[in-house]
Amino acid sequence: MENRARVLIDCSDEKGLVCNITKVFFDLDLNIDHNREFVDKDNSKFFMRTVVTGKFNTEELFKSLKSITPQDAKIKIIEPKRKKIVIMATRESHCLGDILIRWESGELDADIEAVVANHKDLQSLTHRFNIPFNYISAENISREEHEQKVLLLLKDIDFDYIVLAKYMRILSNDFVENYRWRIINIHHSFLPAFIGANPYKQAHSRGVKIIGATAHFVTSNLDEGPIISQDVIPVNHYYKWRDMQKAGKDVEKIVLSKALALVLNDRVFIHKNKTVVF
Amino acid sequence: MENRARVLIDCSDEKGLVCNITKVFFDLDLNIDHNREFVDKDNSKFFMRTVVTGKFNTEELFKSLKSITPQDAKIKIIEPKRKKIVIMATRESHCLGDILIRWESGELDADIEAVVANHKDLQSLTHRFNIPFNYISAENISREEHEQKVLLLLKDIDFDYIVLAKYMRILSNDFVENYRWRIINIHHSFLPAFIGANPYKQAHSRGVKIIGATAHFVTSNLDEGPIISQDVIPVNHYYKWRDMQKAGKDVEKIVLSKALALVLNDRVFIHKNKTVVF
Amino acid sequence: MENRARVLIDCSDEKGLVCNITKVFFDLDLNIDHNREFVDKDNSKFFMRTVVTGKFNTEELFKSLKSITPQDAKIKIIEPKRKKIVIMATRESHCLGDILIRWESGELDADIEAVVANHKDLQSLTHRFNIPFNYISAENISREEHEQKVLLLLKDIDFDYIVLAKYMRILSNDFVENYRWRIINIHHSFLPAFIGANPYKQAHSRGVKIIGATAHFVTSNLDEGPIISQDVIPVNHYYKWRDMQKAGKDVEKIVLSKALALVLNDRVFIHKNKTVVF
Amino acid sequence: MENRARVLIDCSDEKGLVCNITKVFFDLDLNIDHNREFVDKDNSKFFMRTVVTGKFNTEELFKSLKSITPQDAKIKIIEPKRKKIVIMATRESHCLGDILIRWESGELDADIEAVVANHKDLQSLTHRFNIPFNYISAENISREEHEQKVLLLLKDIDFDYIVLAKYMRILSNDFVENYRWRIINIHHSFLPAFIGANPYKQAHSRGVKIIGATAHFVTSNLDEGPIISQDVIPVNHYYKWRDMQKAGKDVEKIVLSKALALVLNDRVFIHKNKTVVF
Repeated sequence: MENRARVLIDCSDEKGLVCNITKVFFDLDLNIDHNREFVDKDNSKFFMRTVVTGKFNTEELFKSLKSITPQDAKIKIIEPKRKKIVIMATRESHCLGDILIRWESGELDADIEAVVANHKDLQSLTHRFNIPFNYISAENISREEHEQKVLLLLKDIDFDYIVLAKYMRILSNDFVENYRWRIINIHHSFLPAFIGANPYKQAHSRGVKIIGATAHFVTSNLDEGPIISQDVIPVNHYYKWRDMQKAGKDVEKIVLSKALALVLNDRVFIHKNKTVVF
Repeated sequence: MENRARVLIDCSDEKGLVCNITKVFFDLDLNIDHNREFVDKDNSKFFMRTVVTGKFNTEELFKSLKSITPQDAKIKIIEPKRKKIVIMATRESHCLGDILIRWESGELDADIEAVVANHKDLQSLTHRFNIPFNYISAENISREEHEQKVLLLLKDIDFDYIVLAKYMRILSNDFVENYRWRIINIHHSFLPAFIGANPYKQAHSRGVKIIGATAHFVTSNLDEGPIISQDVIPVNHYYKWRDMQKAGKDVEKIVLSKALALVLNDRVFIHKNKTVVF
Repeated sequence: MENRARVLIDCSDEKGLVCNITKVFFDLDLNIDHNREFVDKDNSKFFMRTVVTGKFNTEELFKSLKSITPQDAKIKIIEPKRKKIVIMATRESHCLGDILIRWESGELDADIEAVVANHKDLQSLTHRFNIPFNYISAENISREEHEQKVLLLLKDIDFDYIVLAKYMRILSNDFVENYRWRIINIHHSFLPAFIGANPYKQAHSRGVKIIGATAHFVTSNLDEGPIISQDVIPVNHYYKWRDMQKAGKDVEKIVLSKALALVLNDRVFIHKNKTVVF
Repeated sequence: MENRARVLIDCSDEKGLVCNITKVFFDLDLNIDHNREFVDKDNSKFFMRTVVTGKFNTEELFKSLKSITPQDAKIKIIEPKRKKIVIMATRESHCLGDILIRWESGELDADIEAVVANHKDLQSLTHRFNIPFNYISAENISREEHEQKVLLLLKDIDFDYIVLAKYMRILSNDFVENYRWRIINIHHSFLPAFIGANPYKQAHSRGVKIIGATAHFVTSNLDEGPIISQDVIPVNHYYKWRDMQKAGKDVEKIVLSKALALVLNDRVFIHKNKTVVF
């Protein structure tokens, strides 16, 4: 019986790495379906993502790869298994809706375990797709209390990634640390322009001729995590900030869904607050 | 009580038109909220779209405008009234889904009266939003017979526009003539490149570095009606045609929804197989 | 004999403006070749640019327009006259070269009176086109001294606009005030991201997936003047900052030349640190 | 002493290729500075471009690579040597000018041996850069006669590529066969839309909302050779065809120069009328 796996390797660069790694695949009689590698010369770092097929024992493959890569090598052998996500949102439906439609058509390579929101607006949309909707109000309680409630809920759910689909609250350092490199956010500006609140108002006030959106991993520094994907659209003096906001929704949802697909396909490496995307 | 209307004027160009038209608004004490006009010098044609507010009698406004514009002037005074659309589709859900999500959030300036499809695939998605789904199979019957069944259904529905949201059948001249300038289609290529079937296969085979989508009014000539909106995305040699098809879905749905919004907002004039879009 | 003029009007908004202004043109029997107007509702400001042809006396036209517009109206009647520019640069040739090529082909609607540079690198390129090259070194002297030398030179030159074509020095408030709204700069980032020095290094370090360029009027606040034009290109992890710099050159030169063409065609209005571009 | 070379391999795909090729580099103690490979699964073709540095004997390296690759392998080891180009043009200066400016700044990785034109318009521009300009009129002679004259001239020039920088004549099959895969053309449309003459007029008449340009290798089929690079810009109803033509110039020159840089850097493989671009 044939196996299939994504092999991700991330280590210090050294001579012969590609040769030695592909030799392991060759010796085990594996087919290479896709392969991309990249050397970050500035940081002397090596990244490689290979999709292999064939008969193999995962542990054996891992050991073989470990034996010919530098000590600091992070090696992941990811076998086909549908991933699971939780979506956190607030009131706007365009990003959540885009993910739901992709999920329903089978295009999304993940199951949506739950939607968590601090407002009730998205409940009916979520329920249309028979997905659990968890309303956890943030009113009249501290951020800590609110996050504790969310964490309590999340602890009972098995998931790989949290997608912030226009979740309009700032997450604390503590919250983020619970899910290191597992939280993806969409920010409604072309980062690093217009960090923080109301980027469309900021963009309108600055009189820019292009607006954008940025999907990134969440770190404890607001809007400063590694960028996965960005896109832009032109605007002009006819756009009031509300028009920018409206036009921006399409960019936001496409950029977020694109970033999510990249992450779910294990195409994104993170190094030093930047990403390598294959 | 304040009225609000979109005034659309389309006529031969002549000196003093803007002056005379805006004088009518001024004399009736109307406010101009938005105004755009365009003169097509090559064809000596004048186009104007004005949003006015104030107290006015529609008939009186129409007569005043008629009296100071050329004989061939087409004048429309469109008062706020939610438009109605019918969506025709086949199997793919991305365009239909995008419109449904916009409808549910209130962003779509129209109600969806019905979905008509020649396959059953989209039934469950449509029903999630409590919208009537009409399955009319095209199997084992002629195009004429199939279209007759669709026409029969449509005759009982009150609607303004038909949106072909990846409806993969060709409409006959007769069908189209029933709904002149009221059918909007999304073609999955950057027209006029790759007219007809399987544009992604054609694009892949030609080795293009950019693919696109085109929203246009449907005329009796396949894929040759007036273009409303187009957009593109870059591709490269890594894309098989299936990858182009997958990546193209995002362009298709955004281009179609953008064109639909323009049409619903009465921003699109048609002249000689081309559009003027304000 | 036929005249031709660009009429620019910029004033407080009030009812009937379009009507009254176009009536002036009509009464004087002028043809409208192009016309665009825009009302900034937030600031209650009216902007209009009309190209008229016909027999007219400029003073009379001005008076007629003045009499029917608000007191604060700025009215310009610009008759066809080739504009003159001075280009300031440092070492990089791509923006200067792009303007020179457009000038030589007759595409640039201006004459280049002089190139002023604080390095000698661009001398031979400039001389190829028989344009005066003025080398004013900034070494071993203060910014004030350097600017005094430049000002001394500029005082003897008759010009409309200064184009900073990759002039890598910061201009003092005093210098800028001498040429209010007459200095155009190209900044090698998608402003307001990466203000200041080495934007490509900043962009590389931040790991952005898109880089851009911004043409703007120069004010005393570094990189914060009204934006005229912006554009972007995609980048990825393969780009070192030098690659971004190299790829960015094409965006820079196109954005600058586009902004320059808009300004030379009197298509740009400035209001409150923003532009209206017709 | 260190050598540096670009190694290009193009062959049938088979298991172990990457492994075996990189082993050759490793065994010869070569550093890999850049590496990209691609497998076209549909055609079972393998493409690889590697930049290696180290001490090596070219013949020995070639033999080693030959011994471990399939029989049909095309292997090129390209050592650093400035390439030479000939530019053919007609009347428009924007593409020629763009290349000249890049050449003068040292950005172009080639020398321009000659400009050949069927009109005299570009003579003075070319001479500004002290490059030989060869005027070969096509008037009153047959295409064959004209091409014979051009061929006669080209035979005395040592060059790697011919760049058609808006050369507005069609080349015969015979002419093209002399320089197989060595002629690069810029076509002023987004191919395959608007093949042939006057694409901007065609685009205007079709009412497209986006126009583009395509750089491609020239084959005997007009505008149907392998595409290297494409780009587009938005247009609207304000654009007459002359405006499209003017706006299109910027896209044309950037797309051509980008394609030229890719070719000069040996980044372009050709297979079955398509390109693989690393």
